[in-house]
Amino acid sequence: MDTGTPAAADTAKQPRTERGRRTLRKLLDAAAVEFGERGFHEASISGITARAGTALGSFYTYFESKEAIFQALVRDMSEAVKVAAREALAEPAPALERERAALTAFLRFAAEHKEVYRIIDEAEFVDPESYRQHYETTGARILDRLREGARKGELRADLEEAHAWAIMGMNVFLGLRYAVWGEGDLPAEHVAAIAGDLLAKGIAADR
Amino acid sequence: MDTGTPAAADTAKQPRTERGRRTLRKLLDAAAVEFGERGFHEASISGITARAGTALGSFYTYFESKEAIFQALVRDMSEAVKVAAREALAEPAPALERERAALTAFLRFAAEHKEVYRIIDEAEFVDPESYRQHYETTGARILDRLREGARKGELRADLEEAHAWAIMGMNVFLGLRYAVWGEGDLPAEHVAAIAGDLLAKGIAADR
Repeated sequence: MDTGTPAAADTAKQPRTERGRRTLRKLLDAAAVEFGERGFHEASISGITARAGTALGSFYTYFESKEAIFQALVRDMSEAVKVAAREALAEPAPALERERAALTAFLRFAAEHKEVYRIIDEAEFVDPESYRQHYETTGARILDRLREGARKGELRADLEEAHAWAIMGMNVFLGLRYAVWGEGDLPAEHVAAIAGDLLAKGIAADR
Repeated sequence: MDTGTPAAADTAKQPRTERGRRTLRKLLDAAAVEFGERGFHEASISGITARAGTALGSFYTYFESKEAIFQALVRDMSEAVKVAAREALAEPAPALERERAALTAFLRFAAEHKEVYRIIDEAEFVDPESYRQHYETTGARILDRLREGARKGELRADLEEAHAWAIMGMNVFLGLRYAVWGEGDLPAEHVAAIAGDLLAKGIAADR
């Protein structure tokens, strides 16, 4: 999952060279596979360095422990989820179309990186602070978009944090069902169209 | 969490006497506290029996292992979530009011049993089959309600599984934010009214 500069500033020592940056990226990508396949408890530092093709010493240049790289990985993935949505939102569009584009991008991202669920979910137990931070910042980004849509007169003026959390929950569970478990039985665009339609007009019968 | 007869038929030996039933209930309630506070890996059988005030032998009358009581507990909690919703749905009501009542009941249940999130979430790692089963059966129950509402002409006729998963995700995340993390900063009725309103008419501005 190459998302550019590793977003691990809090927990990893920062590389000073391009080569160091690449090594850190390799370690985080290898950690995603190792933690995703084996889970935190079974995963090992030597498993990560073997997958990364780096020496054990390189690991300790950047991370103090298995916990430290796990924390860096959760923050890196949280950043990658944000970047995937941001790219989908680069073009200006009406607020409801923006929500649909963000969900489509998230569903595609989750289908390509199925390990993201397992790793962020395991953070609830291994690194609760990063887990909570992931959802609080994601919810805050959605709320910002809703308020922007309300300012433009496209969305209801009374939208608040609970609406953002409702939308985040929708997106997370649609991703779990259709991107992670679903093996593509419904395409991302179709799932996002259903969610977009729900946000546009609700589920009541037309009167 | 007394939800009546323990829903542990798959994994626990069934008690033949009322006294046995009470012992099994005590063990499951103690397991909810032990797993909820310590997590699966740190939790111990002796911790469970100490909290339950039962002898170690009683534990092995019903369960073979820590894994077995964890699985029984996840299924028991899944059943308890279902029972809480069902009680809220005892009275006939329009479909959208039923969804709001089900969410209000779930939020209250989650606020009273905050450990339910941690335990069901940890099942993703400890007992993935029960984890998946919990969400598949919950989603199927919501879809049944949506289809009933559609038959009565109260809800749109084109509702499908993805709508049910969207609603389940909304409910789970509103529970996480306001019942588990929120310490009651928004009352259950208020949160459920926001979600009900979103389902009734969406988030677009009135035209």
